[in-house]
Amino acid sequence: MSLTLTQKQEIEDLQTQTYATRRVISPNLEEILYQAFPVLDHGFVRVMDYMGDDSAIVQAARVSYGKGTKKVNEDRGLIHYLLRHAHTTPFEMCEIKFHIKLPIFVAREWIRHRTANVNEYSGRYSILDKEFYIPSQEHLGAQSTSNRQGRGHLLSPEQAHYVMALLREDAEQLYAHYEELLNEDSEGNIRDPNKDKLARELARINLSVNFYTQWYWKIDLHNLMHFLALRADPHAQYEIRAYAEVMLSLLERWVPFTYEAFIQYRKEGARFSKNGLAALKKLLKGQKITQEESGMTKREWQEFSEMLELPL
Amino acid sequence: MSLTLTQKQEIEDLQTQTYATRRVISPNLEEILYQAFPVLDHGFVRVMDYMGDDSAIVQAARVSYGKGTKKVNEDRGLIHYLLRHAHTTPFEMCEIKFHIKLPIFVAREWIRHRTANVNEYSGRYSILDKEFYIPSQEHLGAQSTSNRQGRGHLLSPEQAHYVMALLREDAEQLYAHYEELLNEDSEGNIRDPNKDKLARELARINLSVNFYTQWYWKIDLHNLMHFLALRADPHAQYEIRAYAEVMLSLLERWVPFTYEAFIQYRKEGARFSKNGLAALKKLLKGQKITQEESGMTKREWQEFSEMLELPL
Amino acid sequence: MSLTLTQKQEIEDLQTQTYATRRVISPNLEEILYQAFPVLDHGFVRVMDYMGDDSAIVQAARVSYGKGTKKVNEDRGLIHYLLRHAHTTPFEMCEIKFHIKLPIFVAREWIRHRTANVNEYSGRYSILDKEFYIPSQEHLGAQSTSNRQGRGHLLSPEQAHYVMALLREDAEQLYAHYEELLNEDSEGNIRDPNKDKLARELARINLSVNFYTQWYWKIDLHNLMHFLALRADPHAQYEIRAYAEVMLSLLERWVPFTYEAFIQYRKEGARFSKNGLAALKKLLKGQKITQEESGMTKREWQEFSEMLELPL
Amino acid sequence: MSLTLTQKQEIEDLQTQTYATRRVISPNLEEILYQAFPVLDHGFVRVMDYMGDDSAIVQAARVSYGKGTKKVNEDRGLIHYLLRHAHTTPFEMCEIKFHIKLPIFVAREWIRHRTANVNEYSGRYSILDKEFYIPSQEHLGAQSTSNRQGRGHLLSPEQAHYVMALLREDAEQLYAHYEELLNEDSEGNIRDPNKDKLARELARINLSVNFYTQWYWKIDLHNLMHFLALRADPHAQYEIRAYAEVMLSLLERWVPFTYEAFIQYRKEGARFSKNGLAALKKLLKGQKITQEESGMTKREWQEFSEMLELPL
Repeated sequence: MSLTLTQKQEIEDLQTQTYATRRVISPNLEEILYQAFPVLDHGFVRVMDYMGDDSAIVQAARVSYGKGTKKVNEDRGLIHYLLRHAHTTPFEMCEIKFHIKLPIFVAREWIRHRTANVNEYSGRYSILDKEFYIPSQEHLGAQSTSNRQGRGHLLSPEQAHYVMALLREDAEQLYAHYEELLNEDSEGNIRDPNKDKLARELARINLSVNFYTQWYWKIDLHNLMHFLALRADPHAQYEIRAYAEVMLSLLERWVPFTYEAFIQYRKEGARFSKNGLAALKKLLKGQKITQEESGMTKREWQEFSEMLELPL
Repeated sequence: MSLTLTQKQEIEDLQTQTYATRRVISPNLEEILYQAFPVLDHGFVRVMDYMGDDSAIVQAARVSYGKGTKKVNEDRGLIHYLLRHAHTTPFEMCEIKFHIKLPIFVAREWIRHRTANVNEYSGRYSILDKEFYIPSQEHLGAQSTSNRQGRGHLLSPEQAHYVMALLREDAEQLYAHYEELLNEDSEGNIRDPNKDKLARELARINLSVNFYTQWYWKIDLHNLMHFLALRADPHAQYEIRAYAEVMLSLLERWVPFTYEAFIQYRKEGARFSKNGLAALKKLLKGQKITQEESGMTKREWQEFSEMLELPL
Repeated sequence: MSLTLTQKQEIEDLQTQTYATRRVISPNLEEILYQAFPVLDHGFVRVMDYMGDDSAIVQAARVSYGKGTKKVNEDRGLIHYLLRHAHTTPFEMCEIKFHIKLPIFVAREWIRHRTANVNEYSGRYSILDKEFYIPSQEHLGAQSTSNRQGRGHLLSPEQAHYVMALLREDAEQLYAHYEELLNEDSEGNIRDPNKDKLARELARINLSVNFYTQWYWKIDLHNLMHFLALRADPHAQYEIRAYAEVMLSLLERWVPFTYEAFIQYRKEGARFSKNGLAALKKLLKGQKITQEESGMTKREWQEFSEMLELPL
Repeated sequence: MSLTLTQKQEIEDLQTQTYATRRVISPNLEEILYQAFPVLDHGFVRVMDYMGDDSAIVQAARVSYGKGTKKVNEDRGLIHYLLRHAHTTPFEMCEIKFHIKLPIFVAREWIRHRTANVNEYSGRYSILDKEFYIPSQEHLGAQSTSNRQGRGHLLSPEQAHYVMALLREDAEQLYAHYEELLNEDSEGNIRDPNKDKLARELARINLSVNFYTQWYWKIDLHNLMHFLALRADPHAQYEIRAYAEVMLSLLERWVPFTYEAFIQYRKEGARFSKNGLAALKKLLKGQKITQEESGMTKREWQEFSEMLELPL
């Protein structure tokens, strides 16, 4: 992550401002408000604003005139109850707004979460920074042989360095061409007076999807948890998971009871099929059951066994 | 509007709380936070929380690291520009949460605005209050003869009083039956020990749609303006318009520049059809044009003339 | 369900129309297209149109140029795989449109499903039919003592008949008053020439929420399954469940593979928490575990035991 | 547009299939169903399925038991009325599904329309085709001097050819590197046995945003019109407008009355601000008004004059 001096100063200015409010606050989130948490080689996540805390969920669930809170412990219990029974609407009453810098290919997966608000930096209007993502050696995996959309073992150090160099050289070349097409220097003055400046909306089409973009992204707590359940999952591509993991720790700061319940009932829980449930009941009664009898496919049976640590 | 002493105390408690925050605030909205603004005979609107202010719109439009603000006047100009050109996404970056008490028939129209979050008081779970809406005399209009879904002239005072009495008596009777079906007193004790308490989810089905319900309703600024454009419009039913008008004044408190632009470009603006635009050009050149030549229907032609105060 | 002769004729007319199309069709759904399936005492569900079938899901998942289908068995396997892994977007590629007649209090729960399209019969514009819902004896449950929003044992036959009569008399009276307020006969002629017709938008506010309304409701297959998972569930209020159950059978007609997978992985599956999963592993290894050790609350422990038929 | 022989055959197979349906059909849309309409140098738009026609809008607006249709002319009138008064929900009752091949940078703008369903070809799972967008000479505009996000005059032929060659060479190089990173031939066999195949989800990050992707995109008629109003507008970037224009002609085939009303009330209509409306009234009364008196900014005043062909 490389912030300019101006950007650092702007962030510091925000962090030193203080206002009096009658709204509820989340003290642990206030502490790191505006701060840029680094992700990947040039990306970051910043919390820019938020609305509500754990008590706001309780307040909405009770359609309360005053604080939702009766006793802290009752609040915690109600939040666990709501998440356990998928009563999700009270969680929609909290909202959070992020500023995120991320590679375009990550942004393309991210944007598929539609119930959110987005303002992206515009390459039609402005000039993109020279920042692109190069995977580090420990993330350069070979195509997985078992999962068509995943990574397997790491590349050899030699091949990894070769790949990194190739990606870097291509990105450097693309950005140099981008600047040539734009034909303007950092002050906006023309560079080669014998040529036109190509329209920005066209010059940008030559950049690759590992270039960084940035956006403001705002989402309610229910939909944020849905995003995190999918994107902090081992099946998600590493590069988006890296963001989701940082955001999990921000979730914990913001709404600690909800975070706890999310881990308990969503993230670390498990779902069984009708056949899986029937097999479980048999096994618990001490009966034997084979894959064929279970009605599960081989793949399902394997996942079932792994999830339960069964020696099947 | 009739709040219990407990409710009044709960509201006062919220209003006296103060926290320090690094977030932006809207001073004029803070001033009336939590306060119940009366609407109709028993309803109210309260702002329970909010996120962002005018500067947050600018900040998002610029995908800024620091404050969006350059100079106040530039901010105002940008907000007008954005609304004028229907660049609506930056307005989605602000969010507001209301607590609203409203008759069921109003709630049924309201809920059609889908891009919002709602938690409604549950008649399956809880007992509804004895509060129902009786239109006042000056809102008891006869069926309009020109507009199939509107009101025309007022009823005579005699008929108005007759209608009000009839509505009141029916509602009183329904609530008495509701209590009989519930068969429990205010402490939850059974009243007639020879009978069961009917399930709450069934007892409530006998109440009429002028009974009040309440909900928490949260929406972003863009969608709020869409709601207000439709519901503060003279074509909206008076009872929902009464809420929209109170909310307009809350909008002005919250985001004064946006409010100003909303009035200028949405609420008090006008839309012309292709034919209307062509007719306008002719008229401005001093040419004559008839309804037949304009391609407009008689109804369109009439609306066109009225909008422009033309003596056609 | 009581259709007028005109309505019956209109439905028959639709059912006899046949067109040639290049689109995929669902033969079992075509068979019952437009047919009104009765629900409750006066309600119904009709399929008015649909788009796509099982093969369309496969086609979308493969972003295919031609039919998604390779072999029928592979299609079935892919659909099961998609639903098992919550890859839900291909299911959004199918759409279905219903015409539904339902009591207002059911409509109020139904409309909370926001990702759907709705056109409701307008009581501002038109006169509502004299049709209201009276629960039958076998659905008149007392307030549950274990579940605050549910029904327990049935009322005694005497009390049930008393309740039914009370509901019926109130509804009859409300409708009579509605007609009096409207002050027009079935031809739209004024009845009492000494009085005004009250505006329809006002006269309707005196009707109770067990009166029937109707709407066109259109939804994609993914969101339909979400609706059915929640509303065909035993925790849903009986009256909305009655609709969901009819719609389940329509789902089976429409997309048989998807229906099968839905039952297997959603409807009859089960979700366990982190603590539940840990307890399961212990039990499967033959170890003992108590509620206290499990970290579950008493309520969770009980649900856990019941789900697995454990003698805990 | 370059379809393989297999793809052409798959499309032909779909086009020759015929089924009998009781659903309404749109004859002019049936005619071109599945056909690939070329856009840009390698892109296309195909209609894959649809639901409803003009009559379905009328049917939903009337919550009708049978056909919405009374007389064709009444249907047309109602559709115009609905669109003129922004009664948009009946238009949501029609749905259309496209298969679209488009450059990634166009896809990135497109996806901002959130109320739609999408299934995109996955670069994590599959290998992308060697197809990239090179603007033709007549679309290579210089950066506009009046509009920060638009194109001005065309580049000189020399510069245009230089730009095209540069874009082409870069794309060729990126694809060659992509293949090298993938390290597999078209049969999926490894090419260089001394190296690993890099995971597909990583190899793709080196491709530029002018490479083509493809997706299934499904949307309701109301939201499609919103998309077309924004994207067939002169302010939209040419490359997305090229798609919107093809889709406009498909809209005309599908729902001719709606298309007509869309052109009349949305696409070729105009919106005036409060100040603009006030100025209009003065001008129509023969009074003079200056920009300063109008309350409009210079920019607004200029747009106002141009829209009305006023010599101000």
